[in-house]
Amino acid sequence: MVNVRQAVILGAGLGCRLNGVLNGRPKGFLQFGRRPIIEESIAKLIRTGINDVIIVTGYCFEFYDRLAEKYPFVRTIQSPEFATTGSMMSLCMPAPWVQSDFLLLESDLIYEVRALQTLQSSARENCILLSGKTGSSDEVYVGVRDNRVVNMSKCRGAIEWLGGELVGISKITRALYQQMTSLAAEKCKQNRQYQYEDCLTDLSSTTAIHYHRLENLAWTEIDNEQHMNKALNEIYPLIQRRDSETVVSKHVERRVLLNPGPATTTDTVKYALVVDDICPREKEFGDLVEGIRQDLVRIVHGGDAYEAVLFASSGTGAVEACLSSVVPHDKSVLIINNGAYGKRMQQICDGYEIKHIDYDIDWGEPLECNAIERLLTQHRQDISHLALVHHETTVGILNELSTLSHLAERLGVEVIVDAMSSYAGIPIDIKDSGIHYLVASANKCIQGMAGLSFVICKTESLEKTKDIKPINLYFNLYQNYAYFSHKHEMQFTPPVQVFYALRQAINEYFLETEQGRAIRYATLYDVLEKGLQALGFRFLLETEYRAKLLTAIIEPKDTRYAFSEMHDYLYERGFTIYPGKGTLQNTFRIATIGALTEQDIVNFLVHLEAYLVEKEIRLRPQQREPIVGPRSSLGRTIVEQAV
Amino acid sequence: MVNVRQAVILGAGLGCRLNGVLNGRPKGFLQFGRRPIIEESIAKLIRTGINDVIIVTGYCFEFYDRLAEKYPFVRTIQSPEFATTGSMMSLCMPAPWVQSDFLLLESDLIYEVRALQTLQSSARENCILLSGKTGSSDEVYVGVRDNRVVNMSKCRGAIEWLGGELVGISKITRALYQQMTSLAAEKCKQNRQYQYEDCLTDLSSTTAIHYHRLENLAWTEIDNEQHMNKALNEIYPLIQRRDSETVVSKHVERRVLLNPGPATTTDTVKYALVVDDICPREKEFGDLVEGIRQDLVRIVHGGDAYEAVLFASSGTGAVEACLSSVVPHDKSVLIINNGAYGKRMQQICDGYEIKHIDYDIDWGEPLECNAIERLLTQHRQDISHLALVHHETTVGILNELSTLSHLAERLGVEVIVDAMSSYAGIPIDIKDSGIHYLVASANKCIQGMAGLSFVICKTESLEKTKDIKPINLYFNLYQNYAYFSHKHEMQFTPPVQVFYALRQAINEYFLETEQGRAIRYATLYDVLEKGLQALGFRFLLETEYRAKLLTAIIEPKDTRYAFSEMHDYLYERGFTIYPGKGTLQNTFRIATIGALTEQDIVNFLVHLEAYLVEKEIRLRPQQREPIVGPRSSLGRTIVEQAV
Repeated sequence: MVNVRQAVILGAGLGCRLNGVLNGRPKGFLQFGRRPIIEESIAKLIRTGINDVIIVTGYCFEFYDRLAEKYPFVRTIQSPEFATTGSMMSLCMPAPWVQSDFLLLESDLIYEVRALQTLQSSARENCILLSGKTGSSDEVYVGVRDNRVVNMSKCRGAIEWLGGELVGISKITRALYQQMTSLAAEKCKQNRQYQYEDCLTDLSSTTAIHYHRLENLAWTEIDNEQHMNKALNEIYPLIQRRDSETVVSKHVERRVLLNPGPATTTDTVKYALVVDDICPREKEFGDLVEGIRQDLVRIVHGGDAYEAVLFASSGTGAVEACLSSVVPHDKSVLIINNGAYGKRMQQICDGYEIKHIDYDIDWGEPLECNAIERLLTQHRQDISHLALVHHETTVGILNELSTLSHLAERLGVEVIVDAMSSYAGIPIDIKDSGIHYLVASANKCIQGMAGLSFVICKTESLEKTKDIKPINLYFNLYQNYAYFSHKHEMQFTPPVQVFYALRQAINEYFLETEQGRAIRYATLYDVLEKGLQALGFRFLLETEYRAKLLTAIIEPKDTRYAFSEMHDYLYERGFTIYPGKGTLQNTFRIATIGALTEQDIVNFLVHLEAYLVEKEIRLRPQQREPIVGPRSSLGRTIVEQAV
Repeated sequence: MVNVRQAVILGAGLGCRLNGVLNGRPKGFLQFGRRPIIEESIAKLIRTGINDVIIVTGYCFEFYDRLAEKYPFVRTIQSPEFATTGSMMSLCMPAPWVQSDFLLLESDLIYEVRALQTLQSSARENCILLSGKTGSSDEVYVGVRDNRVVNMSKCRGAIEWLGGELVGISKITRALYQQMTSLAAEKCKQNRQYQYEDCLTDLSSTTAIHYHRLENLAWTEIDNEQHMNKALNEIYPLIQRRDSETVVSKHVERRVLLNPGPATTTDTVKYALVVDDICPREKEFGDLVEGIRQDLVRIVHGGDAYEAVLFASSGTGAVEACLSSVVPHDKSVLIINNGAYGKRMQQICDGYEIKHIDYDIDWGEPLECNAIERLLTQHRQDISHLALVHHETTVGILNELSTLSHLAERLGVEVIVDAMSSYAGIPIDIKDSGIHYLVASANKCIQGMAGLSFVICKTESLEKTKDIKPINLYFNLYQNYAYFSHKHEMQFTPPVQVFYALRQAINEYFLETEQGRAIRYATLYDVLEKGLQALGFRFLLETEYRAKLLTAIIEPKDTRYAFSEMHDYLYERGFTIYPGKGTLQNTFRIATIGALTEQDIVNFLVHLEAYLVEKEIRLRPQQREPIVGPRSSLGRTIVEQAV
């Protein structure tokens, strides 16, 4: 795992060989610069993304306790028998607090920050940092074979193949740590001086302990006066110089998100977040926003007739912006509710006391256009807007757009579409579809980062809302639009970095092309569908109603099945799946959007199958009929009434 | 400049030596993989952050025009006389569209993406990419001296010190481009075959043309059949393999933001945005949010009595959340308005029709507690809340907190404080100060990224709002709080990456310590104040009222002064300053918050002085008295009535 968040520092030791220098301090409180070396070490850990530093204390523990008071991310755990036990006993102490992979350090080290960056960027699990020759006279030599550590010794002669010298900084997985503490429980009975290095060696025959060698790393531990002097005169100044020149760098690992957004992103979109600091009131930033606004409209072929208005918010924020800004106070909106997001539109209207007429059907049921037409006709004088969700991710249904919008057009009703989970995933022609307001966000099929949402508005309609008295400030659509139009700036502080990521994501969308993305997503879905069928899973929706961007799957009835267990099994292997929503708790959901490849889906299916086999969960491949559809009576028993 | 956004590709050429192969296509449409080499080149440009690709076309221009139709980030400019002119004439064609530094490429290249990454990461301006020996038989050798390019030639003998071989990819500043087009206007009169390489050589004696050599870069131009074959058999497969292994990387340049937020951030906070994709409904993310919520409270010493509620929004969003959620429908809020942000609170209340009683004084005037006490007493039955801005950045005034909050406490009124621009910059004890709701955002003195805001709520007060009927959805404080408390998840999709950056920023805050940050900010202000005084600038506010985080400065009356000119002069040198707000247009503003050092302020002052000298702007150092204060009559003439 790259970029671990915890660190454990072994700081219990007595420092016998430095008695004259320490004056009753622990070794970590030796000082060469402005702060004790332990504080410098902590600062380096924080710099490389550590959030949680556990120091195992013993000798003069109160020094470290004061650090824990000063820094909220530091906590201390006492090793009561430190004076008579080895380092492995100390390392067992924080077991209840070690939640994840961690960096393990000794407290008496000075080192370049590059040492931590190297381990944090390394894809190798259980990785020990080695250096070239130090001549410290106190070296721990590390023997290696086949890229693995095999033994360690202070005696060079005991090593066959020399990997390098042990620095005292390692990256340890939680699994290895559990093995280490188990082994230590036994070993310490015989040998209270059992050291963590010995423990690693003992485990190395069964568990791969890797290493990373940094040839010219400047570092030393401070164990005696000779080390002190060399540190003071040579090594510390060298570290200071090199650290000041070290450029921050970051590696990421690929995880496959199968939840319905935020979707998996490309690494280039991730790194697009890293930009020079910029004030968003600068023209340079205004130009960026303007380009994005135009391209968001271009994606749905809005030409010059539409304007995009952006908000720093989740997608729900933009839905709220639209509903609260465009429905005249004396009019109503007809809201179609066949899932959680239709329901949410009703909640928004309830809050603001916007009049709404509801078309409520069971979640997952397809719309009946005739019924909607009847409602529209019946309330003809009252209804100004029709609002619906395009791809309702509650069940993965794709709601019919054009029949409804043409119906609305005939009756002079404007159309609001929540296209959160279809925009840029399914080709949409906003003009042909007769949509007046389309709402979406940056973190779904467009494959940008969360924190930005937008409404693509028919300019003619938007201009008409100018005279509606605003009923809020932040989400008023017209005012946000007017502010940008007049000032070429966002009305409120935008999430600057998320904009740059969206810029990159849009470029990558155009590079893939509308057709290219639609085909890729369709392929991801096909591979998933076939694979799930082969495994014997059943689907909630009939094929014809599926958006094919998210699939709701009936959970196995087997008692050996538990969603959370399946989730965790897959999560550990790099795949994130999603539970059912609301009353549809007997399903789980797999979204096939984002920067995914066919191979990702195949890999997912392989792991899913392995889980089923391991848990001996039996599916019934013969029962493959879909169970929710307009005429499915079985569906009605599974899907409870939504409102 | 690192990470330029434009690219110019020279694609006009005839490709005479490839007649048999081209079949009426331009050279960019040769194809080795799935797409023509020009499309592969464009994809690499997009991958490295280019937004705007200009292709200069000539021979078979319609091929490129089709690319421009396919990709919105591509545009084509024809070079009408391409058949009889050299490359420099072509390079002059896009002059009206070249807005910034850009990458210059030839169209007939195949190359590793690393070539672009190297130039994009290089701090060297005007940088030509060179390679080691290619043996292509068509080499352009580049002569160098003192780290600068001095000449280029196809004849090895003409080069004294060989820097390497010209690849045909360069980073050109806008300034150099202007010199090139000017020189070309002359040179082309005599020599229509003037090449861009010759132009660079001609300018190299007066302008530094740098180079970057990549020894083992895999690349070739395709000029003849020999190149074709070598590309097909060797180089293209090598490029494909290496590109698939290339890790995305990104360098940033330091800019000093002196606007009142988003503030300058550390590089470690910037890189903290780059994380593995994660679904924010995962426990791992919930834990991150929980840790941040606790630490946000800890920063203002709220102990267990307060809860932080976070929103994906700008700071204004959180102010709106607070006002719209906590004032009972039958009560009023007393709003103190002595600046734009006090006024904004009134606008929010107007939108929602929340009753408010206004204490309006001139922007920049200090509060008169007696007057506020009179209002509170007068409307005692009606007022449930008092709302004010702590540090009003309109003028940089620090509004009195504790006198007012104790007054409010006596009268049973709860206190809402917009501490947007003071939180984590000035030590605040939320309990001692008697604050019930404190609103702030991630991108000011806490030094995180924009896109996140929060309200720190006294839990006892927040719990009481449970029964107030919500008047919106997204910003309802209690519901957001309850959702997180019950589910350990944010109610609406959070800006995932901005959370990780805030985590890092908070860690760095604690590392610096509350006192450390306060002292650093105070020092930044002192250096600024002394420097501005020495230059003869005058300040809007009397010292005693200044927050000392943002300074409002009276603009020079000199006709040679113009804010936009001064801004642009400093912006080009890496410093962003800020105009006055609203009616206070005769000021400009300098914030001294963010990851800044004393040296940054000193550097800023040096550039500011250079600007004044260059423009011969005279200030009157003798007139140093502050001109706005409670008893300043002059102030009243400058500061117009705000409401």
